[in-house]
Amino acid sequence: MRYRCDRSEKVRVGVIGGGAVGLLTAYFLSAQHDVTIYVRRQEQKSVLIQQGVVVEPYVRKKSIKVKCIEDMVEPDIFLICVKSYHLPALLPSLESIRCPILFMQNGMGHIKWIKEAALPSNIGIAVFEHGVRKINDNKVLHTGVGRVRVGAFTEDDLDILHYVSLLHQDVFPFYQEMDWETVLQEKLIANAVINPITAIFQVENGVLLENPHLAWMAKKVCEEVATSLGQPWEKKWEYVKGIIQSTKENRSSMLVDMDHCRKTEVEEILGYLLDRAKEEIPYVHYLYHSIKALERQKRGDVEW
Amino acid sequence: MRYRCDRSEKVRVGVIGGGAVGLLTAYFLSAQHDVTIYVRRQEQKSVLIQQGVVVEPYVRKKSIKVKCIEDMVEPDIFLICVKSYHLPALLPSLESIRCPILFMQNGMGHIKWIKEAALPSNIGIAVFEHGVRKINDNKVLHTGVGRVRVGAFTEDDLDILHYVSLLHQDVFPFYQEMDWETVLQEKLIANAVINPITAIFQVENGVLLENPHLAWMAKKVCEEVATSLGQPWEKKWEYVKGIIQSTKENRSSMLVDMDHCRKTEVEEILGYLLDRAKEEIPYVHYLYHSIKALERQKRGDVEW
Repeated sequence: MRYRCDRSEKVRVGVIGGGAVGLLTAYFLSAQHDVTIYVRRQEQKSVLIQQGVVVEPYVRKKSIKVKCIEDMVEPDIFLICVKSYHLPALLPSLESIRCPILFMQNGMGHIKWIKEAALPSNIGIAVFEHGVRKINDNKVLHTGVGRVRVGAFTEDDLDILHYVSLLHQDVFPFYQEMDWETVLQEKLIANAVINPITAIFQVENGVLLENPHLAWMAKKVCEEVATSLGQPWEKKWEYVKGIIQSTKENRSSMLVDMDHCRKTEVEEILGYLLDRAKEEIPYVHYLYHSIKALERQKRGDVEW
Repeated sequence: MRYRCDRSEKVRVGVIGGGAVGLLTAYFLSAQHDVTIYVRRQEQKSVLIQQGVVVEPYVRKKSIKVKCIEDMVEPDIFLICVKSYHLPALLPSLESIRCPILFMQNGMGHIKWIKEAALPSNIGIAVFEHGVRKINDNKVLHTGVGRVRVGAFTEDDLDILHYVSLLHQDVFPFYQEMDWETVLQEKLIANAVINPITAIFQVENGVLLENPHLAWMAKKVCEEVATSLGQPWEKKWEYVKGIIQSTKENRSSMLVDMDHCRKTEVEEILGYLLDRAKEEIPYVHYLYHSIKALERQKRGDVEW
């Protein structure tokens, strides 16, 4: 193990993905580290080079190195910030990478793919708890300060935890977790409850507790999901209520995706739960088809 | 029993309720019979007296006697065309009536109230299968020609069936049914499937078969409702699909009520099913709370 505990040490960070998570992460890490952001579209690359990364409500704009994914150069650590459903296309190009790789996807669907890919690197699984919304190709809005909680994928991957303290900043904290699965499941439960109901009823998160009928649903879905994952649901419901409270003014990512007629992460969240459930989970099943139905109504004839 | 089989016989019909069903029924029956329509609001009474009843797409407008409900005069038969949730307020004023009374409500919730009221009249239960939409206080749109299917409430009520042939017209047919409960349940199943899903997703009926995810839901709800009522669900699903097909351009009454921020019949349809269900019916339960949630969002602070 190479332990590098000098907090002032500059790390070469490769952030793959120029979405909300990637831009926010690159913005904060570039204050201390040598960050390169990798994007797919030439158009976004140009905008980022010309205008830098802007994170509202902060004043300072940051210039960050930008490359296209084809031009990948191995840094000290890769942070994978693409949406789950883009991982299958990306994973083959990570097979020749030797540096640690930290995955920052939502849901749990990506775990299976990471397992199957059997990458030679040290692998970390992160849960990204910040509230962030993309405004355009170089601008995001930081709607809630959270944490990046990092666990080693297996016992062979413990080396990656060394980077937690290196990347940590008070304004953009990284935390070490022993059991990423529980942390990811907790976030999955919150996502499974908050995302679909807010998207179907087109409401901010807080309405899930203000409207008693939506509160009934949220609780039922939480109970069903937690039980299906083998977790104590009352405790998880307290957790989910806390998240709803602390993000009450926010529009969930699924609602925002729907508003912009973009593909949602329904497969990664509800599809994953349906796949792994051993018993009928009717509320999740209904929500899954509701989101799929709305996607279909919205997109009309356009194929994603 | 007084059998009056002369089809040209003029019957004095009292139609209670000036909604879509009442206006359509009064319009057609007034071609042969002496119809008085009873309404609650003085405003609607004035409009109906001044402008008559208009049913689009038909050309002829009809003048029909109009009275307020307080000024009720006993006719040969009363047709009760108010919404289910108005019945409890109306039933006491029917206790002194001796003429036959035909109830034309949706759902099954009204049956309990009729039983409890123990009216002295002959009671009939009708299932109203026409498609009709109210445009304003004196105008409706006839969107689908159907039937009025009539059964006697109990064996003591068989006399009322005599009116079926008297009221029957080819353009507005009345049919005699031996088992109103099955007919009503069939309509209840169709309503429970079509109304809430179209209202939540804001689509015309036909989309329930065109969008595969909504079709999945419709089938699931149909299965759950039919099974809960002790009926063979595959057969009922064929029936419901037929109704969806034949009304594919229509907007369901629940969708229209929601569009106009009006109270829906969710209690009479889904609430009734939840009340009588002996086992968990999660899809119905979810739909029930969805409609209640939407009603609450729509109406804001206005109390109905």
